[in-house]
Amino acid sequence: MKQTMVIVGLGLIGGSLALALKGFEDFEIVGVDVSQPTLRYAAEHGVGDRVTEDAAAELPQADVVALALHPQGIVDFLARYRDAFKPGALVWDVCGVKTAILEAAQVLPGTVDFIGCHPMAGTEFSGVEHAFAEMFRDSHFLLVPRDDSRPEHIALLERLAAYIGCKDVCRTTAQAHDALIAYTSQMMHLIAVSVCDDPELFQCRGFEGSSFRGCTRVAALDVGLWTQLFSLNQPALLAAVDRLLDNLQSYRDALASGNRAALAEKLAHSAARKREMNLPGPDLLA
Amino acid sequence: MKQTMVIVGLGLIGGSLALALKGFEDFEIVGVDVSQPTLRYAAEHGVGDRVTEDAAAELPQADVVALALHPQGIVDFLARYRDAFKPGALVWDVCGVKTAILEAAQVLPGTVDFIGCHPMAGTEFSGVEHAFAEMFRDSHFLLVPRDDSRPEHIALLERLAAYIGCKDVCRTTAQAHDALIAYTSQMMHLIAVSVCDDPELFQCRGFEGSSFRGCTRVAALDVGLWTQLFSLNQPALLAAVDRLLDNLQSYRDALASGNRAALAEKLAHSAARKREMNLPGPDLLA
Repeated sequence: MKQTMVIVGLGLIGGSLALALKGFEDFEIVGVDVSQPTLRYAAEHGVGDRVTEDAAAELPQADVVALALHPQGIVDFLARYRDAFKPGALVWDVCGVKTAILEAAQVLPGTVDFIGCHPMAGTEFSGVEHAFAEMFRDSHFLLVPRDDSRPEHIALLERLAAYIGCKDVCRTTAQAHDALIAYTSQMMHLIAVSVCDDPELFQCRGFEGSSFRGCTRVAALDVGLWTQLFSLNQPALLAAVDRLLDNLQSYRDALASGNRAALAEKLAHSAARKREMNLPGPDLLA
Repeated sequence: MKQTMVIVGLGLIGGSLALALKGFEDFEIVGVDVSQPTLRYAAEHGVGDRVTEDAAAELPQADVVALALHPQGIVDFLARYRDAFKPGALVWDVCGVKTAILEAAQVLPGTVDFIGCHPMAGTEFSGVEHAFAEMFRDSHFLLVPRDDSRPEHIALLERLAAYIGCKDVCRTTAQAHDALIAYTSQMMHLIAVSVCDDPELFQCRGFEGSSFRGCTRVAALDVGLWTQLFSLNQPALLAAVDRLLDNLQSYRDALASGNRAALAEKLAHSAARKREMNLPGPDLLA
């Protein structure tokens, strides 16, 4: 018998999930959203196998529920529908903070399993009309189970991550996730917006290379979403920003000193660290 | 009769130029380098029409000479070969600072025209073995003529920029160039190395998305080259870094205040600036 996977929220991520998950094992993919234009677009473009606005009607039959809302939306949804989930169901989310979400998931009855997830993909756009099935290709899928999460649910999410194209699944804790994401993702967004606050921004047209485009791309962010993500992870993000301010200041001091040998030594140190990381770039042009 | 264009320095940029310029108008493209392995590689891979180590023998016949050395190498080359250039020749360079280079070019006799250039392209690699003909595709070509630069030389460089695939040619002054490049390019490199100095760097493997890869890609820089570029543009770069430190600190303060509305307002302001710039990203994945 076909199982049902409900995806709540057909925005950029939820819509892309609904596209990428079509044909996954024996699941029927059901998209849920409160916006009529979103539902219309999703139905017309095959985002999921079918779509509906009626979460309350779907949840009691859903074997798996993916929450693809903004963080506060996830918290509110869990509180509102806590008693509507099918006993034995797996509920998971896709948002970029995990401590706050796992805390919120404690409202669920003991019969419902919750696993925090974070597929590290996205674009600087939002909305179902920017969703695409290949969004998750080659990205990391972060997985934060609870102590009592069922092994078959963890295994299901691992297969799911592979099916949508993720290159690996990293299991971690909510606290470790939030500390690392403050550095690798949230801080990149704060750098991007800070660079765009420079008074020279509009004068520099024609003078930007791809290092500038690469660094500032994510500045065109979804304000509501990122205000929540930053605020829900404030202590870790402040710590990461403080480390960056220190490291930038240290380069500033080396440059101001006029000591070229010291500057070269610092650069050699940092460049060697980067080479040791050996991450593929998104492209090659500087 | 065929004209001769000599490219001095067959590294990443000079080698890519020598590849991209083959077939340009009626020019024979002659590559010059002091390294035997580089010359051998260039000869075997068709980097230019022919290659030689003998700059002194080529310069008196060269109608156009492109200097693709590190900044200090350009300064030294101009001083050493000042009297070897063909009267009426055009000499141009490709490096990322212009005030220091145009100053150095004053050693040339009045019969030799010098035009500072900066094709805004590159990768985080160096050496002729990483050169490729498409390097300049869709990049900006910055052009800094002297007051007495000959219009036909400016026109020649504009045709050359189009031939190698640049999307536009921006004429500017050395001072304006250096101030803007401090912001759009040099500061991106200082951000990248500072991010890589974070103690969490090696712990974050598996937790990076493309915003992290995009921001840090250029940290694997050529230490000698960038030490020179930073040092030769120290005042403008310090000013740019100070503006960044202020803007980052301002975001830090907004986050620390816990005032979500104020943080959202700041983010909306920066995101709108980014959208107004409307630069194409190097890719779409966050």
